[in-house]
Amino acid sequence: MKEIKINLKNPYSVIVTSTNSHLNFWFEQKKVGQLFIITDQNVDSIYADYFRSFEQKIIGKYIIKPGEDSKRIEIILDIYRALLKNNVDRRCTLIAFGGGVVGDIAGFVASTYKRGTNLVYIPTTIISQTDSSVGGKNGFNLDGIKNIIGTFYQPNLVYIDVNLIKTLDYRNFKNGMAEVIKYGLSLDENLFRFIEENKRAIKEREIDKLKYIVSECVKLKAGIVERDELDLGERHILNFGHTIGHSVETMFDFNILHGEAVAIGMVYESYIALKRKLISEDIFDRLIKILEYFELPTNINIDNYKRFKDIICKDKKNVDNNIKIVLPQGIGRAIITTDVKADTIVQNIQEYNRRLL
Amino acid sequence: MKEIKINLKNPYSVIVTSTNSHLNFWFEQKKVGQLFIITDQNVDSIYADYFRSFEQKIIGKYIIKPGEDSKRIEIILDIYRALLKNNVDRRCTLIAFGGGVVGDIAGFVASTYKRGTNLVYIPTTIISQTDSSVGGKNGFNLDGIKNIIGTFYQPNLVYIDVNLIKTLDYRNFKNGMAEVIKYGLSLDENLFRFIEENKRAIKEREIDKLKYIVSECVKLKAGIVERDELDLGERHILNFGHTIGHSVETMFDFNILHGEAVAIGMVYESYIALKRKLISEDIFDRLIKILEYFELPTNINIDNYKRFKDIICKDKKNVDNNIKIVLPQGIGRAIITTDVKADTIVQNIQEYNRRLL
Repeated sequence: MKEIKINLKNPYSVIVTSTNSHLNFWFEQKKVGQLFIITDQNVDSIYADYFRSFEQKIIGKYIIKPGEDSKRIEIILDIYRALLKNNVDRRCTLIAFGGGVVGDIAGFVASTYKRGTNLVYIPTTIISQTDSSVGGKNGFNLDGIKNIIGTFYQPNLVYIDVNLIKTLDYRNFKNGMAEVIKYGLSLDENLFRFIEENKRAIKEREIDKLKYIVSECVKLKAGIVERDELDLGERHILNFGHTIGHSVETMFDFNILHGEAVAIGMVYESYIALKRKLISEDIFDRLIKILEYFELPTNINIDNYKRFKDIICKDKKNVDNNIKIVLPQGIGRAIITTDVKADTIVQNIQEYNRRLL
Repeated sequence: MKEIKINLKNPYSVIVTSTNSHLNFWFEQKKVGQLFIITDQNVDSIYADYFRSFEQKIIGKYIIKPGEDSKRIEIILDIYRALLKNNVDRRCTLIAFGGGVVGDIAGFVASTYKRGTNLVYIPTTIISQTDSSVGGKNGFNLDGIKNIIGTFYQPNLVYIDVNLIKTLDYRNFKNGMAEVIKYGLSLDENLFRFIEENKRAIKEREIDKLKYIVSECVKLKAGIVERDELDLGERHILNFGHTIGHSVETMFDFNILHGEAVAIGMVYESYIALKRKLISEDIFDRLIKILEYFELPTNINIDNYKRFKDIICKDKKNVDNNIKIVLPQGIGRAIITTDVKADTIVQNIQEYNRRLL
């Protein structure tokens, strides 16, 4: 078991382990009373027994449909009503048991129901274990705009059981690996090398390797979140691959997984970096190779570049109409810049796609 | 002009003044850019010109219907959409220009739109100037349950212009005075005496007197909020008059103003304190006298005590089925207790009402 402290105003721990047995211990230690579980149908069908050893604490469970479409105000209102019906008070602990969608919904509910209840995240996907469960962001979609409403709300505990990854289907597994590769390329050369050297064991989901990469990602994220909790500056570095990636998600109406879009985004953003001589051809090739090893997409066919440019220009992260983009600078380092114009982004994507023909 | 600092993680100021002229200065000093105003029809009809000197900064305005019924999710969603339509980003400042309802709605919107925008409160009623604008609470109602959804979100500035109180109708003026009297009786003997000695000038809304009582209330609240931002202990002391008061509001379906209900609540809760010899008959009489001077109600006819007891037992503030109540102990001091049973509360109300016959 590893314990990583997140030193914010109300400090909390991220526990990385491969069993559910420390959870009960933590509940006892913190004198946690009633629990209310928010999960999704997939997770519930596999892990209905996960909480058996403290079943008597559970006063209710809300099961959402899996997928981004659940991140709607109607679902959130329905959860509020379920909590009221179960007489959930502020001292009750909500458990977010699932991937990013469950975490986003449960986090928002916990931060707003009776002005804030206790919250424990138990992320079940590699993407939520390494990324969304740490940092306190939550949210829901409105009129098709992703995460446009939400808060920053830190949980009392993030409990990462890497064993849960074992049952992930392969597409969702590699989806998470895209974010892990992102951490390596943009923030930590050692992590990138570790992935390259242990790719086969990681693909086979060896527990020790999973524990290592997950805890390294959490440590990297923790440091950044501690320095920029409210996403006003440095935290933006985590968006490597995301400026183009988010636009790809929107362009394809979310018929692509987040990690897949980020993989594509990383390639194009690295290509921009390559053209600016921020990275070498060799580094660019290593990125392509590791993405291909995990069978992640490394390009996408865009049929309407004008529309794509419009989407990029409307990104939530833009300030004063300047596009924010993160470019790698070698391996393990990246810069945040606003001096890449939308036209340049589109031209580079076109150029790279032509190169592949 | 008085400036009171609220020393939370992100400190901010409460400015108490009797003009709008310092507002522009603050905007310049803080390099505030775009403004989006949230207000209500009443305030807008009287004070549409209040922001004239920096009109060019204003990019939009949303005007709600006055009254508690606006605190609904449908209104909040409609405001989100208005903000999106006006391309409001996180660096824009929302202005909550109105009483408690406007503040509650605008505060919630500011804390959740794009995970948090800047917020300036300009409270226009005595109740919002002395109470709801300081402390960061916001919220809306769901299924008839008041403020059941909300967050703690601190503004960047609270700008209190007591001159705005001049145009308040008398019922809303005295409604606010109930909260001021609450501060005096439960927290500050000097304030209580000041109100008694200057009641006529206060009733005539002499600016200097208003400035004094408002800033004393803000100082009292600031100290408590600094020590208990999230309402986990000491902050509950501000609920003197509110345990019974909230139940009166619910019982009468909010056909009574908040301050009126608090006035009634203070009388009954003080009567319980009197029976327990926490206060003398003399203090109890002084409370009745000052409430009567401001023509506030000091009792209410309850026709269904069983239902009233049920409402008290369901109060959001209760923990583990214990009713939390604040009892005065002399003037300027109060205690939070959970050892008064619902039955005792109801019996005392009945007894006091019989005494009046």
